[in-house]
Amino acid sequence: MKKNSKDAIVNAAISLFNSNGFSGTSIRDIAELAKVNTATIAYYFDNKLGLLEYCFTSFFEQYISKIEEAYTLIDQGAKGCLKRVVANLLHYQCEHNHLASVVYREMSIDSQVVREIMSTYSLKEKYYFQKIFEKGFEWNEFRPHSIPYLIIQLKGLLMMPYMNTHYLREVLYIFPNEPFFEQKYLKEINFWIEKTLSAEIKAKKEALI
Amino acid sequence: MKKNSKDAIVNAAISLFNSNGFSGTSIRDIAELAKVNTATIAYYFDNKLGLLEYCFTSFFEQYISKIEEAYTLIDQGAKGCLKRVVANLLHYQCEHNHLASVVYREMSIDSQVVREIMSTYSLKEKYYFQKIFEKGFEWNEFRPHSIPYLIIQLKGLLMMPYMNTHYLREVLYIFPNEPFFEQKYLKEINFWIEKTLSAEIKAKKEALI
Repeated sequence: MKKNSKDAIVNAAISLFNSNGFSGTSIRDIAELAKVNTATIAYYFDNKLGLLEYCFTSFFEQYISKIEEAYTLIDQGAKGCLKRVVANLLHYQCEHNHLASVVYREMSIDSQVVREIMSTYSLKEKYYFQKIFEKGFEWNEFRPHSIPYLIIQLKGLLMMPYMNTHYLREVLYIFPNEPFFEQKYLKEINFWIEKTLSAEIKAKKEALI
Repeated sequence: MKKNSKDAIVNAAISLFNSNGFSGTSIRDIAELAKVNTATIAYYFDNKLGLLEYCFTSFFEQYISKIEEAYTLIDQGAKGCLKRVVANLLHYQCEHNHLASVVYREMSIDSQVVREIMSTYSLKEKYYFQKIFEKGFEWNEFRPHSIPYLIIQLKGLLMMPYMNTHYLREVLYIFPNEPFFEQKYLKEINFWIEKTLSAEIKAKKEALI
């Protein structure tokens, strides 16, 4: 019963933060949608910021674990490992597309919470990307390149559909929450890995698929 | 004098929307920073939403004109034209990085204003991208491909640094408002155009620079 009301609060918060933004949502709105009273929210999360922190943390805990899971494959090759990271993250975002939209949007506003999230999770993410790219350079799988600029591009490709879901739906008629999108878009990012990231020498023989 | 106070209001609004988000900013905050009284803001923009609309419109009017300017080159080739579009948009975003951040973030929240902006400017943008890609396919410059998926990638690459400026600064130590970044990142997107977009046949002879 208690677990249920906590989940209901989180789901209501994600839904409202997604539609109206964090600042555009009140505790009262969340309580109403979750069918709880505001005291229950205060009991679990202190206040609205506590709820946002909870969203950030639960998103990034799983996000990082998806990267770590894929990183175990590093000794079989950097390219294969990176493709697995991308597949895992895309799937994770697709399954939690509302939460991803909320997190990515609110991360763009400078605040104490955001700085803390960056100094833990974003640095961890960077650490893994950096390791994969460095291994890829070392093993001649990737052409030597500025790692931060590669991270910008990779993250740009990964985040775009979930930062701009309305645009995708309304303008491009693409639905980033659907498995069809996930599969097709994964191929696009893999194509980017093959074409712009991979070293010429290695790339020539490998099929693109 | 009047022009000055209008500009001061717009600049204050962009700065505060950028730091605190649209919903996290009050008319009183804007009035204080712009050193005007709230009635002056009401006189020019009616209310906060009017100010946001003004930001959207002034951003996209220039944004679209940058695309149109580059599109005049289409008869000299689709790839060259696309590269010019990218260079123009990157330069424009770099010069107006606070405004770009505000616009991109607020565009991710579904609202009446956002839907209106999308049905005018985003459709216009899509029209030009579509034309350039179609010409590129027709002239065998680009490999045939799903246009919406190309637009997602291109816009993802273009918008990423301006939707995530704090991340770039705090985690990657990259400053997307600097001309150095603009030049280096332009090369990256051109590389994407050459490598993932261009047809193999044509690409082989052209130097990447």
